[in-house]
Amino acid sequence: MELHVKKENNTGSAHANRARMLISCPDGPGIVAAVSHFLHQHGANIVQSDQYTMDPEGGMFFMRVEFDLPELEKRLPELESQFSEVASTFRMDWKMQNVSRKKKLAIFVSKEDHCLVELLWQWQAGDLDAEIAMVVSNHPDMKEYVESFGIPYHHIPVTADTKKEAEQRQLEVVGGDIDVIILARYMQIVSPFFIEHYRNRIINIHHSFLPAFVGGKPYAQAYQRGVKIIGATAHYVTEELDGGPIIEQDVQRVSHRDDVSELKRIGRTIERVVLARAVKWHIEDRILVHENKTVVFNG
Amino acid sequence: MELHVKKENNTGSAHANRARMLISCPDGPGIVAAVSHFLHQHGANIVQSDQYTMDPEGGMFFMRVEFDLPELEKRLPELESQFSEVASTFRMDWKMQNVSRKKKLAIFVSKEDHCLVELLWQWQAGDLDAEIAMVVSNHPDMKEYVESFGIPYHHIPVTADTKKEAEQRQLEVVGGDIDVIILARYMQIVSPFFIEHYRNRIINIHHSFLPAFVGGKPYAQAYQRGVKIIGATAHYVTEELDGGPIIEQDVQRVSHRDDVSELKRIGRTIERVVLARAVKWHIEDRILVHENKTVVFNG
Amino acid sequence: MELHVKKENNTGSAHANRARMLISCPDGPGIVAAVSHFLHQHGANIVQSDQYTMDPEGGMFFMRVEFDLPELEKRLPELESQFSEVASTFRMDWKMQNVSRKKKLAIFVSKEDHCLVELLWQWQAGDLDAEIAMVVSNHPDMKEYVESFGIPYHHIPVTADTKKEAEQRQLEVVGGDIDVIILARYMQIVSPFFIEHYRNRIINIHHSFLPAFVGGKPYAQAYQRGVKIIGATAHYVTEELDGGPIIEQDVQRVSHRDDVSELKRIGRTIERVVLARAVKWHIEDRILVHENKTVVFNG
Amino acid sequence: MELHVKKENNTGSAHANRARMLISCPDGPGIVAAVSHFLHQHGANIVQSDQYTMDPEGGMFFMRVEFDLPELEKRLPELESQFSEVASTFRMDWKMQNVSRKKKLAIFVSKEDHCLVELLWQWQAGDLDAEIAMVVSNHPDMKEYVESFGIPYHHIPVTADTKKEAEQRQLEVVGGDIDVIILARYMQIVSPFFIEHYRNRIINIHHSFLPAFVGGKPYAQAYQRGVKIIGATAHYVTEELDGGPIIEQDVQRVSHRDDVSELKRIGRTIERVVLARAVKWHIEDRILVHENKTVVFNG
Repeated sequence: MELHVKKENNTGSAHANRARMLISCPDGPGIVAAVSHFLHQHGANIVQSDQYTMDPEGGMFFMRVEFDLPELEKRLPELESQFSEVASTFRMDWKMQNVSRKKKLAIFVSKEDHCLVELLWQWQAGDLDAEIAMVVSNHPDMKEYVESFGIPYHHIPVTADTKKEAEQRQLEVVGGDIDVIILARYMQIVSPFFIEHYRNRIINIHHSFLPAFVGGKPYAQAYQRGVKIIGATAHYVTEELDGGPIIEQDVQRVSHRDDVSELKRIGRTIERVVLARAVKWHIEDRILVHENKTVVFNG
Repeated sequence: MELHVKKENNTGSAHANRARMLISCPDGPGIVAAVSHFLHQHGANIVQSDQYTMDPEGGMFFMRVEFDLPELEKRLPELESQFSEVASTFRMDWKMQNVSRKKKLAIFVSKEDHCLVELLWQWQAGDLDAEIAMVVSNHPDMKEYVESFGIPYHHIPVTADTKKEAEQRQLEVVGGDIDVIILARYMQIVSPFFIEHYRNRIINIHHSFLPAFVGGKPYAQAYQRGVKIIGATAHYVTEELDGGPIIEQDVQRVSHRDDVSELKRIGRTIERVVLARAVKWHIEDRILVHENKTVVFNG
Repeated sequence: MELHVKKENNTGSAHANRARMLISCPDGPGIVAAVSHFLHQHGANIVQSDQYTMDPEGGMFFMRVEFDLPELEKRLPELESQFSEVASTFRMDWKMQNVSRKKKLAIFVSKEDHCLVELLWQWQAGDLDAEIAMVVSNHPDMKEYVESFGIPYHHIPVTADTKKEAEQRQLEVVGGDIDVIILARYMQIVSPFFIEHYRNRIINIHHSFLPAFVGGKPYAQAYQRGVKIIGATAHYVTEELDGGPIIEQDVQRVSHRDDVSELKRIGRTIERVVLARAVKWHIEDRILVHENKTVVFNG
Repeated sequence: MELHVKKENNTGSAHANRARMLISCPDGPGIVAAVSHFLHQHGANIVQSDQYTMDPEGGMFFMRVEFDLPELEKRLPELESQFSEVASTFRMDWKMQNVSRKKKLAIFVSKEDHCLVELLWQWQAGDLDAEIAMVVSNHPDMKEYVESFGIPYHHIPVTADTKKEAEQRQLEVVGGDIDVIILARYMQIVSPFFIEHYRNRIINIHHSFLPAFVGGKPYAQAYQRGVKIIGATAHYVTEELDGGPIIEQDVQRVSHRDDVSELKRIGRTIERVVLARAVKWHIEDRILVHENKTVVFNG
């Protein structure tokens, strides 16, 4: 039974001919001119452009461009093909995306549901412009709830002994054309074997203001240390536990009156908000990863 | 006696050949391409570029570009002259600035000194990359303090009867080549006669979260209304009292325990921070005014 | 069908013998001594006590006390009866509450569901220690969703012509023993006739940082004015539109890039958080109203 | 020459007969009753009272009381003497303070002046209700500036070889009746020998959101890790480096555009604000230390 009627996305349909381009390359003269000249020449109109140079001399250059092009769907493959010449001149790492193609999400969850509920609510409200392709969980608890949104739910139990098989099974279920995996309080450590299939495409929400309180039970650690502010961190998952590129963080003030369970309660709202922002920015192609840091064009 | 030794500016000298360009014009295809092509053609290297389009169809386009050009000082006049052709094609309102030319500030102050002290401290610390050309006050109180920084202090008393003459005197003292006048808790209403000489060049700090609590005694008003958060607003001064384009705002949480004098105390820190940010952005050419709103490229 | 399984409340059951007392009275010597002496004498142990004096001389005194008393349920009526003597000495306005008695909530909603969804989620997560007795709406849209939580849904249409009858019907449905009515983006103005039945028991969420942008379309007003921060305000409803005692406010930074629909999207999260906090504090007897302001003991 | 005229304190003189009491003890029934009864009996009127119980059963109890007592100065010694009976019953750790007695501060500083300037400005504005007894520095740089406020400046150089002698000299200069030592960006590690003379009376400002980025160069560490928010922490100094009880923290949002020098610039404002708050709370007897955490009654 589908209780939940998804609203039309607020913005998507208006942008039938809009594309985004993300570029990273060594900095040098003429890049902006080359890109904007190329787009203008091909009849595209730039509607937003952000760029960032790490260091004017010898650093890296990052760029995000949104442009409108009549008959985009038909002409995009050709545009990509022709841009590769420009790209190779400047040794660019780049991609073009049709904005109207919805990204595919897989959400991984364990028993705590607040991050999942937030994503589902934002998705249903039309604020998360993506397709939630599936929810994967090591517990069966939320099956009925998730399916009430018309979203497939895959229960894949994980134990110490079966972890390898479980990840193999997850790989099959998720498949190759998923755009991003969201660990929405998924309480299992993901192995390097799994990570390498989805480099910079797995977003985790850690319930502390990283790098403070790496590892388990961060609210208990925060209480122990007597901090006056707690936070949450959304980051891409790498082989180093809680060490991947940070996408977004936020915090809230607490006091000596807040015990561990109150810290958890306060923290749940921060976690929800921070994760939802990070997912939104990933979906809108606002994040570039360089070494272990992110450039986020969210301005 | 100069007690205060100004530190070398942190960044200025590194940017001997850097310029900034600010552009406003009706949106249309090819603007970014034309600007970046022009700069590339003339040997300039774009180090930062921000743009904003109000609406892809029929709106306004705003752009801020920082670029490096060898022998800038010598070549800037010629560059400006040649750019005016590009500018007229797109009906641009624009200006180019040599970053190494320091902007000139005049600070107006009455009896409360916290905003003045903040600006002087930031200036002395090398964080405010400008020349404080003078301090003007309707009271003599801070003369000695200001002069200890080596900055001229003009005491121009203002009464209801002498307001017109006082403003005439202020005009003479400030002169025409001042870049920005900062009302750092200057407790006099500035007349339209004065304002028209410095359109979008007078920054005021209002001690409330505008548009709440327009007019006098905003902390008393805030206390009366029982708000849980107070704020401050930096804005350009227009003929409408507290109604000009907002540049920056910030807030802080308060509680029922905070009486009016405590609200004032808390507010002073917000005012200082908000005003200093607005001044910094103005000095760095980060603000474009359109109708009664600002576009602030501070990302 | 009940999809949603409510979790055990995190804290409730631990406090079987806990009570709360709220006191307002003219300030004077000996109040704290009298109250604490009374409680100690009757075998109660104070676990938390907050007080606030508006002005040491001639102002009002406010107090909130949490205490544990063995066999509370049996002994509370007697305790109340005996306290009335103390109370009359100091001309106290006061009440005692058994913490384990759950407060009854009625949620009023129109078409926008984000505030309702937040309250339901917090309730289901065990963070809102109350009974949601019903949801009342002038639209039928959320009936199925609300009922899936096992909560009654009353659809009472309201038109300009039928407003009086509709409010009469609401009165009957809500009844007299509801503790608080929550206007969770209920888009109808409530009449003085209705308000007088629930004085200081109706909480509204206004989607602006009051007193800025009173009335309709506050996000459009905020966009128009070009503010750099938007907010939301939870307040008790009085006869003056958007003018009642403020309970809680919060804000978030925005920029020129955020159009009205983006402001609404950002605002929804602030609204949810602010309303949920206000409701939590009301439920926990943390709010005292004096004239048009609140004392909130949330420290 | 004294350029700086200190303003009358905003609040001090109004409270000629006001005292504060701080109490820590094992929790148990009747403490509040005993304290408030004692004060009432002796003619004192409680104007503010805060309390906190770590755990209703078997934890610690903390209390801060402000009260007015006619002829306080004359009667305080007797009151203290009589209270010691109550105190011993409950095994209290306690102190009473005459509010009108100004606390004595010693400020330690190295070369960075922003925290010192802030404290001097707040002191001069009448917001820091204390006596700045001296400034101690391992550098001579700020001698003239500090002396222009009429405050003694002690230049005590510190090298690896002379550290022990330098601390001995500091001890002599500071003496025993100083209330609090403020390390206002004092870039020397203070030895256990020095700390033991001023247990819970040395406040340090660390330029990170502890426990993230313990040790040196925290802004460089923050840049390296790519955090999206930076902060500062005021804490009491203990033998563990950057490990003492946290008094206050605050943060500000940053982005990939902010390099280390920009982080430092942003951080300076956070450091100033956080340190000034911690000092204010210490001076107002709002902080109780228990094990390695603080209870801060700042509500």
